[in-house]
This record gives sequence, C-alpha cells and structure tokens, in this order.
Amino acid sequence: MPDLPAATPPDAPPERVPFEQLRATLARIFERHGTSSEVAAILAANCAGAERDGAHSHGVFRIPGYLATLASGWVDGHAVPEVQDVAPGFIAADARNGFAQPAWAAAQALLVAKARANGIALLAIRDSHHFAALWPDVEPLAEQGLVALALVNSMACVVPHGGRQALFGTNPIAFAAPRGEGEAPLVFDMATSSMAHGDVQIAAREGRLLPENCGVDAEGRPTRDPRAVLDGGALLPFGGAAGGHKGSALSMMVELMAAALTGGNYSFGFDWSGHPGAQTPRTGELLIAIDPARSAGRSFAERCGELAHALAAAGQPRLPGQQRHRQRADSLAHGVPLARATWQELRRLAGEA
Amino acid sequence: MPDLPAATPPDAPPERVPFEQLRATLARIFERHGTSSEVAAILAANCAGAERDGAHSHGVFRIPGYLATLASGWVDGHAVPEVQDVAPGFIAADARNGFAQPAWAAAQALLVAKARANGIALLAIRDSHHFAALWPDVEPLAEQGLVALALVNSMACVVPHGGRQALFGTNPIAFAAPRGEGEAPLVFDMATSSMAHGDVQIAAREGRLLPENCGVDAEGRPTRDPRAVLDGGALLPFGGAAGGHKGSALSMMVELMAAALTGGNYSFGFDWSGHPGAQTPRTGELLIAIDPARSAGRSFAERCGELAHALAAAGQPRLPGQQRHRQRADSLAHGVPLARATWQELRRLAGEA
Repeated sequence: MPDLPAATPPDAPPERVPFEQLRATLARIFERHGTSSEVAAILAANCAGAERDGAHSHGVFRIPGYLATLASGWVDGHAVPEVQDVAPGFIAADARNGFAQPAWAAAQALLVAKARANGIALLAIRDSHHFAALWPDVEPLAEQGLVALALVNSMACVVPHGGRQALFGTNPIAFAAPRGEGEAPLVFDMATSSMAHGDVQIAAREGRLLPENCGVDAEGRPTRDPRAVLDGGALLPFGGAAGGHKGSALSMMVELMAAALTGGNYSFGFDWSGHPGAQTPRTGELLIAIDPARSAGRSFAERCGELAHALAAAGQPRLPGQQRHRQRADSLAHGVPLARATWQELRRLAGEA
Repeated sequence: MPDLPAATPPDAPPERVPFEQLRATLARIFERHGTSSEVAAILAANCAGAERDGAHSHGVFRIPGYLATLASGWVDGHAVPEVQDVAPGFIAADARNGFAQPAWAAAQALLVAKARANGIALLAIRDSHHFAALWPDVEPLAEQGLVALALVNSMACVVPHGGRQALFGTNPIAFAAPRGEGEAPLVFDMATSSMAHGDVQIAAREGRLLPENCGVDAEGRPTRDPRAVLDGGALLPFGGAAGGHKGSALSMMVELMAAALTGGNYSFGFDWSGHPGAQTPRTGELLIAIDPARSAGRSFAERCGELAHALAAAGQPRLPGQQRHRQRADSLAHGVPLARATWQELRRLAGEA
C-alpha cells in the first residue's frame, strides 16, 4: 500500500475536518480492513486524537502501516483481551496478539480503582501491538487525578551505547501529572532513541536531513540521511555525544519493564519475517498509576501549578504537552487540518467516496 | 573546611584500606561531628560503599561537605525518622530534616513486604537531605528479588531546556533489576543533568574542561570551564543539542515525583542562606518497588539474563553497574584504594591519629 499523500503540502490550504467525522471515518477504515467494531472504535479515537493534537507522526500517517499489518495476518484485529487481577496492586492483561489499546481500555477502570485503594498500582500488558503515540495512554489517568507513567518497547532499531547492532526499540516513556480544575495536565511522551521512528520516515519522505548524532547507516557509520537509517541502518539512543549512555540505560529499563515484567517480547524477540508488510511490534507495555491524594503536605495539583509557574518564570517557553493542547483546542473549534488529498484517500479507504 | 587531598594523586601508590576499617573510621567521623550513632552507621556504610565501588564523586570526597553542613546547623544529624503506613501500597516517611538514608533504612522492610503483598509499592520520603549516590537505595531491593526505581531532587543548579534560570536539581534516577542466583543485579544511577554536581567539582579541582553542551556561565553563555559553572553558572539537562528537551522533561518528572508526591521541597524551594557551609539539599525522595514474581511468562531473572546476553552479543562493552561491581570485588579482596594523605586526614577527623 502506498503512503498517504503528505499531510501538509505547501501548495494547498488544508481541509478542516470535524473531529467526530474524522474519528468515524477512521473507524470505518479499520473495520473494513480486518478489525472488530470494538477495536476499530478504540484505534480510530486514538489515531484521530493524535491528528487533532498535531502529533502527525502518530496520526493518519500511521493508517497505511496499520492496514498493511492487518493484511499481513501479523496482528489479530479481532482479539479480545483478557484482564487478570493478579494482586491488590498488579493487573496483567493478555492482548492475545491484538493491539495494546483495547487491552488498556479493558483494564483502565480496574487500574484506577486499584491505584485509589492502594496508593499505587500497575498494569502489565503482554503480547500486544503498540503502533500509536504513548501520551493517550497516560493522559486519561491524569484527567482522573492520578500521576501516570507508561513504558512500551517496540522493534530492534536502536544500537545500545557502545554497541554495534540494533537491539532496543525506540522505547518511549510517557508521563502525566494532574493540575488543578480546568488546567490541562502536564504530559510528556519521549522516545528513548534520538528520534521517533515515524519522524525518521517523515524526514525521508520530505527529503530532510536528520540532526547530528541521531543515526548510523548499515555499516555502523554516523549518517544524517534518513533513508540510510531506514535502509539497514539504525538509530542511536538519545543523549548526544556525552549522554548516549544514559539514553541507552533508560532504553534498557524500558525493555525490562515493558517486556520482562509483563511477559511480552523484547524488541529483538519476535520474528515477523513470515508476514511481509507487517509494521507493528509485538511486545508489551507497562503502566503505573499513583494516587497523589495519599501524598503529605499541600495538594498535588497546587504543587504542580507551583512548578508550572516556576518553569514559566525561569523562561521555559512552554510546558510539556502545552503545544498539543493548544492545537487540540484549535482542531476542536475549527476542524482537524488535513491535506485535501489525504482526506480524499481516507474517505476512499472508508468506502465513503 | 578544606577539601580532602585528591583521592588518586598520580605520584604515589594508594593505600589499600580494609573496607570494614574504612566504614568504622567514617562512622567515627560522623559521630564526632554531630550525628547520632545510628545515623553515623548508616551514612558511613553508604559513603564507604561508594568509595569501595569506585564511585569517587560520592565516596570520601563527600566527607568535607557532610561535615560543613552538620557544622552549619542546616541538617539534624540526630533526627529520628517517622514512618507512616498510609495505604496498602503507599508508605510515607518524614525524615524530620535529617538525612534520607536513615528514613530509607527505617522503611525498607515495610516497603519490601508491601511490594510482595501487593505487587507494587512506593515509599515517599520528605524533608530529607540526600548527599549520596542513589544506587545504594535501589540495589538492596534488587538483591531481595524486586525491581526498583528511585528518584531524588536536589538543589537548583540546572536550567530547564529553553529557559534562562537554574530551577532543577541534578535530579538523578536510579534503577535496579535482579538477575539470577550469584549474578550482580543490573543497576544504573544517572543524573538527569548533563553531569553530576560532584563530577563538576572534581573537574574543577583537577583543572579539566567539561564536555560540550554541559554547562553555562553566570551570563547564560555556553562554557566548558567547570569553575564558571560552579561560580554563578549552571548545568544543562542531559540530552545534548538535539535531546535537551527530553532530559529536561525527565528532570521535571523527578521534581514532581520526589517533591510534589512526597511533600518535600522542590529543588528551588528551600533557603539555606542562613547556614553558611550547608551543602545538602533539603528535598524529598521517591522509591518504587515491584515484585516480578507476579509477572506472566518465564522468570524475570531468566528474562533479565537473556537481555544481558543480547547486550553483550550486540557489542555493548559492559552492563550498567558491572564496572562498579568489579571494583567492589577488587576492593573487598585487596582493600579500598585511598591516597595516603586522604586516609591520614580521615583518621585525623576520626580522632584516630
């Protein structure tokens, strides 16, 4: 399947598609290409939400990858996750070779209840495919007043610091903390690699060079060419020349927590060679939720607001998550900006045009 | 108080001091300079352990800072921590303006029991002074079969990414994971700043330049001069030119988890100006312990061993913590290497010479 047309061609003003319409169209696309209606609804809300927030590398850009993977038989679009209450603070979810998001949706209410009852709780998802942004997994917990951490491993495309061979995934870490009433939570979502894989693909498509210290080619030589990274090369851990060992250690931690602690595969631990077109890593995900109502001293929301103000006073131009929340407000008010050709192609895939 | 003589002068072979002797001498030093015998024993084991492991920036190098702080009246060397069982998975400890390590020692057995009973548990320490390495806080948990994460904030000396003013501490994150019987756990301990503060002090003392992208001077201009960083300048978050926003986001997470979630001070939230000589930050610490026996699939120790082998096969020269464990074995077999003048000064401070 070809890529979708570029999301923001310089020569045409974008369409402004109402968020609910985009969501419904994406749900039809998923359902027509091999998922249950339940899975389609969850993936569509996730993907449309990323596009709405301006997180293009995890928005509709991902649709061809989802569909190629479903067509390859690598992922089970009809999987019904199994949630197991293992201990007062420990939930296990078997995604049964389905996507991670339906397993997360099935366990979310139990995780919130356990975090409130115990002060902290975790959800260990295994045998799951995560092909989306990670902030949508933590943000709903912060909106319910919890502090949340999520880690997911992916597919071997990052060379450990000082090593020769790709082993880690881009292995993102996401964090969310609630602020006061009416304030968007503080949220970040970062690859522990130098870049997210989707951003390398976008750079390749747009013919842009990567920054220094981001990747190596197939011979392990430093390169700024995104195609060399994608074509047998690899990414480096984030941290730059002086701090790559730290990004590498964090990436190792993500492997241990998202895979070894969940019972999921390591990023180097699955073989999709029998499924040409497959793009979604079959790994695991760990979520931790903490109830700050148990904390001593002033309310957590108040403390969080204090830090936000101090960051602004210290000259930090914006808070983590703030740009995304601004784009969200704009998209909800005026429609989600999409290139005309992209929107036409999505409607075609949905059988709407 | 002057610095101790340099730990490894190039012109003299070091003394080899038996570990137990070093520990006992340091305990005498602490007790003679204003701590209870209980606090002295805990700090001495911690500090001697860092020196034993070759972690010089947190070994006996720290003694003058401890003593200057005790002399200033900033920290209470006789504080008795209060441990509160807040919820099935949540322990709070009030260090009562004492050091963090006695609070951690007082709560450790309860944290281990709660992690085993619930699958996950946390310890929130507040009003505490942490002037030591962070790996000694997580390693004992891994030795008891638990996966452990620790976060501690410190004192405003790191400029948030894109900002103008120091706000964050060096804010380290430490992680430990158990391996099989007889294998040292996987452990890392990293500042979320470009460097640890102690390493900047050591570079200044030894007249070495810092790497690129590590610090700024008092006017906010990039500098490689460690004295300019210490003298009104500041460190940058780790991550280098392309990833500084990630190090900055992690540092923010440490502030929120180690301070806001515990009820401790932010790194910019205490005033020690009335205590000249004070060097220990009065903040908070968060520890999370997870019981991997609750995990699905093969044993965690087995999975951890599998990753360690894969890292070696991918060419990573050593595992996190490995160099420290090698140095430990050498120190325990042959004594802890200390410059003769350093050891003499320590014995003098202990009233032994």
